[in-house]
Amino acid sequence: MPSSDIFIGEVVGTAVLVLLGGGVCAAVTFKRSKAFEAGWVAIAFGWGFAVLTGAYIAIGVSGAHLNPAVTIGLAIEGGTEWSDVPLYILSEMIGAMLGATLVWLSYYGQFLDHLTARQSDAAEPAGSATAPKRDEPGPVLGIFSTAPEIRNSWQNLVTEIIATTVLVIAILTQGLNQDGDGLGALGALITALVVVSIGLSLGGPTGYAINPARDLGPRLVHAALPLPNKGSSDWSYAWVPVAGPLIGGALAGGLYNIAFA
Amino acid sequence: MPSSDIFIGEVVGTAVLVLLGGGVCAAVTFKRSKAFEAGWVAIAFGWGFAVLTGAYIAIGVSGAHLNPAVTIGLAIEGGTEWSDVPLYILSEMIGAMLGATLVWLSYYGQFLDHLTARQSDAAEPAGSATAPKRDEPGPVLGIFSTAPEIRNSWQNLVTEIIATTVLVIAILTQGLNQDGDGLGALGALITALVVVSIGLSLGGPTGYAINPARDLGPRLVHAALPLPNKGSSDWSYAWVPVAGPLIGGALAGGLYNIAFA
Amino acid sequence: MPSSDIFIGEVVGTAVLVLLGGGVCAAVTFKRSKAFEAGWVAIAFGWGFAVLTGAYIAIGVSGAHLNPAVTIGLAIEGGTEWSDVPLYILSEMIGAMLGATLVWLSYYGQFLDHLTARQSDAAEPAGSATAPKRDEPGPVLGIFSTAPEIRNSWQNLVTEIIATTVLVIAILTQGLNQDGDGLGALGALITALVVVSIGLSLGGPTGYAINPARDLGPRLVHAALPLPNKGSSDWSYAWVPVAGPLIGGALAGGLYNIAFA
Amino acid sequence: MPSSDIFIGEVVGTAVLVLLGGGVCAAVTFKRSKAFEAGWVAIAFGWGFAVLTGAYIAIGVSGAHLNPAVTIGLAIEGGTEWSDVPLYILSEMIGAMLGATLVWLSYYGQFLDHLTARQSDAAEPAGSATAPKRDEPGPVLGIFSTAPEIRNSWQNLVTEIIATTVLVIAILTQGLNQDGDGLGALGALITALVVVSIGLSLGGPTGYAINPARDLGPRLVHAALPLPNKGSSDWSYAWVPVAGPLIGGALAGGLYNIAFA
Repeated sequence: MPSSDIFIGEVVGTAVLVLLGGGVCAAVTFKRSKAFEAGWVAIAFGWGFAVLTGAYIAIGVSGAHLNPAVTIGLAIEGGTEWSDVPLYILSEMIGAMLGATLVWLSYYGQFLDHLTARQSDAAEPAGSATAPKRDEPGPVLGIFSTAPEIRNSWQNLVTEIIATTVLVIAILTQGLNQDGDGLGALGALITALVVVSIGLSLGGPTGYAINPARDLGPRLVHAALPLPNKGSSDWSYAWVPVAGPLIGGALAGGLYNIAFA
Repeated sequence: MPSSDIFIGEVVGTAVLVLLGGGVCAAVTFKRSKAFEAGWVAIAFGWGFAVLTGAYIAIGVSGAHLNPAVTIGLAIEGGTEWSDVPLYILSEMIGAMLGATLVWLSYYGQFLDHLTARQSDAAEPAGSATAPKRDEPGPVLGIFSTAPEIRNSWQNLVTEIIATTVLVIAILTQGLNQDGDGLGALGALITALVVVSIGLSLGGPTGYAINPARDLGPRLVHAALPLPNKGSSDWSYAWVPVAGPLIGGALAGGLYNIAFA
Repeated sequence: MPSSDIFIGEVVGTAVLVLLGGGVCAAVTFKRSKAFEAGWVAIAFGWGFAVLTGAYIAIGVSGAHLNPAVTIGLAIEGGTEWSDVPLYILSEMIGAMLGATLVWLSYYGQFLDHLTARQSDAAEPAGSATAPKRDEPGPVLGIFSTAPEIRNSWQNLVTEIIATTVLVIAILTQGLNQDGDGLGALGALITALVVVSIGLSLGGPTGYAINPARDLGPRLVHAALPLPNKGSSDWSYAWVPVAGPLIGGALAGGLYNIAFA
Repeated sequence: MPSSDIFIGEVVGTAVLVLLGGGVCAAVTFKRSKAFEAGWVAIAFGWGFAVLTGAYIAIGVSGAHLNPAVTIGLAIEGGTEWSDVPLYILSEMIGAMLGATLVWLSYYGQFLDHLTARQSDAAEPAGSATAPKRDEPGPVLGIFSTAPEIRNSWQNLVTEIIATTVLVIAILTQGLNQDGDGLGALGALITALVVVSIGLSLGGPTGYAINPARDLGPRLVHAALPLPNKGSSDWSYAWVPVAGPLIGGALAGGLYNIAFA
């Protein structure tokens, strides 16, 4: 595959994936959003259809990995050349950072309103039951990157490994089910619904990064953006949603070669 | 393509799109509707499947643009003749106005109940905690056209441009993924889910017009219909959901030609 | 098509449709159901996927009309012989009655608990804020048949006509979009999502019968079943969800012949 | 079909099905899960897409029964050799037990937090309105196996029989609707949506086991796992979600042979 196709497909596809995935987190987080508090069903379908949109745009160009864990799994399985792996991962990272920046642009007014609310609410008595807690950094990082509900690196790592293994095995087996060798439109749809499934079922403990680029790229953007009161980028956790998905993707590739090939 | 096919397909398809899209807004807005307060997930799927239904009906006739932003994007990409563009846009506008009128007919009793509630509730003391606020004009315009959560024309324009660019790029790339040159049934389905995705993820700030006809047509109907207490048609905002999607569609066409063609 | 195929396909398919459609109404209505108060999104997807399941089972046998309005529309369009129409409609009615009976069997314990709750709750003071209102007949008829939110026969009729016209036009046009002449698996899926769409968008005023058999068959079963405290079968409204869909189906067939054929 | 294919496909596919199905129950049950109280729509889509993911992975290997009731139905219909039935069922049971163990691993921290909460909350006064009831065994068994809302074995059996009959008939008839003899990607999708439908519509009374392996396998794991305060494994009910689905599967096979073959 030409390098320019890999670069364009993965940058654009991953940017769309992270724009729509981060977007749904913004949509349910911000008070002045029409989707405020729309709940976990909205999140799970939002991320799944983000994958659909990004994959559908990139399939015919780069094969639509959009995820270093998928790239690693395909390289182990043999569907992707190892020599293409660095370019795939670099492009996915660039796309993810671009996508996170587009989330910030799309919700610019909401970010501003949310992060500068402290001043306008200053007159309210501290501890007032009705005082909005709109200046907490947590929800803003949550628009960019994942964080666990119960912080225990090894437990969180296991959850990410299991969830990513399921994702990548499902992607690897689709070659068995469809004509042709590419990821067709129907394959993109089913992959998207697999992501909805993982979100609904395995997203509870860690927020299902299942994609190192989707987590690390936006975290870098969170660290770089000049947002007031944005809080920590939580770097102590950042290795988990990178290592877990990479291990899961490799495990899926290995299991596939042993059991299914 | 024969002009009569463009006219019939776009009028009927866009009418169905706006009937079902406006319909879900009515369904969740009116107190005496079975879907009252069904939430943003209902809205996002409602609009997405409205696109599915309208597109499915019109595909085999006119190609199912149903949206001037899509028409512009396709004209730039080369899939639609520039000479057909005015007829497409005119037909889409007529369809959107017809669809908005059918929403009013379908929810005629609910509109009446909602808009004339002031009289019947007049005996309740002002400021009563239980007094229904059923005579506010806002929710009724919201059944026809979009309005931003935070009113800032340039921010709102950026959000509409980004959301529409994603939509139109996804539509343009499907030629790469499917046999034939038309928008098949599977393509209609995936386009619909892309619209669900945009609704969940980028609908928060502005309500995602992403279609000038879908916003301007119903706004004209809102202005024309003899509804009591209907309030302003908010013409000062009306240019944003027209200009944003047109710019987004053109941007998508240009990006597609540079990056994907 | 052999008469036995029409009979078997329509009876089984419509029975499954009404079993699953009535089932979701039971599921959200009864307090001792795991889906209690799951909301309108559950209802709309429940009915849509009920259509999917029934249609998928019956496609290869009878063509899966499952709805007299569809049969009428197809007869006008020319896809179904007029001489087959009576058998289709009879089979659909039998299937709908069978399906409603299966809902009752599936939720037998819940019906009993719900309808005999008056006795067990008798000790609670009248008007108590916590007293369950479990002996109202309304919710039980709602498991069988539709009822409007605002009772006005002509308005309700218009809503049913508009909703059914959309449904039947979508079904008629699928011949333009797919190979073969039957309703394939993908066609069944899209028809199901069209029904989800109609439920989300046009179900608010009348509960979207959009199918005379789906409403009249279960109403007859409600009238016949020996349920204590079951209340009225609301015969004064019963003509609306029969006449509306039949008019809508005929209108769709006529519009299709004029505009699309 | 080679025995190794049956074994691998059914073990892996059923493990993924139960991991994702049990996972969504864990996700909505545990307080420290991002999907806490996401509701019945999440459960129904979670289980349906769990079937999609498991089936999609196993289709090309073993045909993706993933359910003894499906295996029995296919054996009666003739699509599966009777001599393969024991291996199918054994593999499904092993897969289900593996899947339930993976749920426990994925939610290890949540199980620990939930089941050991009694100690940390001991200081709160008994009967306090705000005291969390986090040491109840019920919700934990519910992550593994089903339990009825109204406990009446014969009623519960009837519900499970009806629900499973619908599922297996839908699977058997897909041979009529698709090319080839296998369960293709589109067939897996539609089967998954049929499971969503059954969950929304017939899951209310018993929690829709509709699969003996999915219920009995995890119940054995619940009995075996060293969980503190885990409560009873409810063996008195355990025969119902085994017998009901097996009867339903056989009934579906018989009905199919009489009516559709």
